[in-house]
Amino acid sequence: MKATKPILTPHDPEYAERVRESFERQGAMKLIGATLAKVAPGEVEIYLPYREDLTQQHGFVHAGIVTTIVDNACGFAAYSLMPADASVLSIEFKVNLLAPAKGDGFIARGEVIKPGRTITVCNGEVYAPGEDNKLIATMTATVIMLQGRSGIPQG
Amino acid sequence: MKATKPILTPHDPEYAERVRESFERQGAMKLIGATLAKVAPGEVEIYLPYREDLTQQHGFVHAGIVTTIVDNACGFAAYSLMPADASVLSIEFKVNLLAPAKGDGFIARGEVIKPGRTITVCNGEVYAPGEDNKLIATMTATVIMLQGRSGIPQG
Amino acid sequence: MKATKPILTPHDPEYAERVRESFERQGAMKLIGATLAKVAPGEVEIYLPYREDLTQQHGFVHAGIVTTIVDNACGFAAYSLMPADASVLSIEFKVNLLAPAKGDGFIARGEVIKPGRTITVCNGEVYAPGEDNKLIATMTATVIMLQGRSGIPQG
Amino acid sequence: MKATKPILTPHDPEYAERVRESFERQGAMKLIGATLAKVAPGEVEIYLPYREDLTQQHGFVHAGIVTTIVDNACGFAAYSLMPADASVLSIEFKVNLLAPAKGDGFIARGEVIKPGRTITVCNGEVYAPGEDNKLIATMTATVIMLQGRSGIPQG
Repeated sequence: MKATKPILTPHDPEYAERVRESFERQGAMKLIGATLAKVAPGEVEIYLPYREDLTQQHGFVHAGIVTTIVDNACGFAAYSLMPADASVLSIEFKVNLLAPAKGDGFIARGEVIKPGRTITVCNGEVYAPGEDNKLIATMTATVIMLQGRSGIPQG
Repeated sequence: MKATKPILTPHDPEYAERVRESFERQGAMKLIGATLAKVAPGEVEIYLPYREDLTQQHGFVHAGIVTTIVDNACGFAAYSLMPADASVLSIEFKVNLLAPAKGDGFIARGEVIKPGRTITVCNGEVYAPGEDNKLIATMTATVIMLQGRSGIPQG
Repeated sequence: MKATKPILTPHDPEYAERVRESFERQGAMKLIGATLAKVAPGEVEIYLPYREDLTQQHGFVHAGIVTTIVDNACGFAAYSLMPADASVLSIEFKVNLLAPAKGDGFIARGEVIKPGRTITVCNGEVYAPGEDNKLIATMTATVIMLQGRSGIPQG
Repeated sequence: MKATKPILTPHDPEYAERVRESFERQGAMKLIGATLAKVAPGEVEIYLPYREDLTQQHGFVHAGIVTTIVDNACGFAAYSLMPADASVLSIEFKVNLLAPAKGDGFIARGEVIKPGRTITVCNGEVYAPGEDNKLIATMTATVIMLQGRSGIPQG
């Protein structure tokens, strides 16, 4: 990227704890066995070990499961910058699947490229850590911040 | 859509059985409890009952799980039209999340909008069946057909 | 679509006039020769006659020009539902290019699939009107409504 | 990006000349006043000076015009790596519009993130060169290589 990177400053000094608590409340993360690997301002990494019950018909991890971890990495990257009483929802994302998800485990990394009052945009990637850190998928995600919106429990 | 819909003719009369066999080989579908609800030429539906272990931090089904079923519905919709020795891979998709995934269960529907020799494009949607069949998410997916590509077991 | 279609009610009875005025202010539409063909609540069509100076290297209309008209059709479809003092901006879109843009002219059609207070989601398509109304491109667009946001003159 | 970047080697030593010739054949680039600013293996930049006839209703350059230059930057970045007899077509792209396109001029930069025999994936960005090189838009584009496909004149 040749455009200037944004300065990413969290509104809430307790951002990392807040991200961890919200992550813990996700049944889906427990089900698939994902864990939080890194929390920094505007940047989150999630680790997913390979498991056979996460696969599609060719034995690779299912594109939807790959999406699940990178959507989360992007959503929490956005969430890390927000005020303590905010919650976030992905409103849309786009995934390119560049290589089959094979390997012992996978890192999903989300990074804020445009923080905003209402809308935050993140880039994500999934790679298989190893000699060549092979890139498996990329994501661009648009996340909306909600404050006190009825029907949405705070994150 | 005002553009003419494509005529969707399967290459393989055994297409429905082939889709069902491939679906059965997906560990991820068993893990989340999804089942195949409809298989027609260029159109597939998948049903997912609500479960607490599929949720995100607000108690709705996780966007990644929603993506998992609609990616599958799109991929199998494409697969239903293909020759018996072909396999398919999603190369990219884009999801818009229109409403929280709450309800007793969800239908993901995939439909081919442009069949092709190499590239097939599908539209997908997820809704909560009920009085108003509330639309939860839409997908556009690009699927590639592989024939005898090394390293990819045939679907 | 099997999900229920939304009911699309404009906030402003003068919506059609408002759309036409905003369209007229777009230098880009004059440059490429596009005209407004239909304005209904949540649905807009734009017509673009073929011109050689709109082409890419193979003589088809450039994908970016195709995008220009369908982005507009989507944006104005969203705008047609909004209050008189609102303006709209596309925050993201995704385009699938299904067939080369060849023909005497092209219709871009945008339609609201999810109206909202802040975020509206639209589907778009571009086709070459004729015997078979051949589908050339599809779009999904996310549009944000702005009211009194500094720096953005009202639409 | 923490995943390893791909090594980008052009098949054709005359790649830069080939890109320039193909660019020259695009009527649309002349119409909007865009020029080729950089051609390297897997990386292309296009410059677009601001003009009033490129604008939308708020006086910013139209999102479709922004898309036109970054789609081209991505397509030519892919094309720069391909054999001399190949041509390329974008099959889909996704654009996030991060800031209004205001400024004296704009750079669109396309970069290959995954080269392939059939499918190449590129990232693109548009920024307003200046003190802060403000990021205006990002793109992810999927490009297909065609060789001797009937009906498509070679690029």
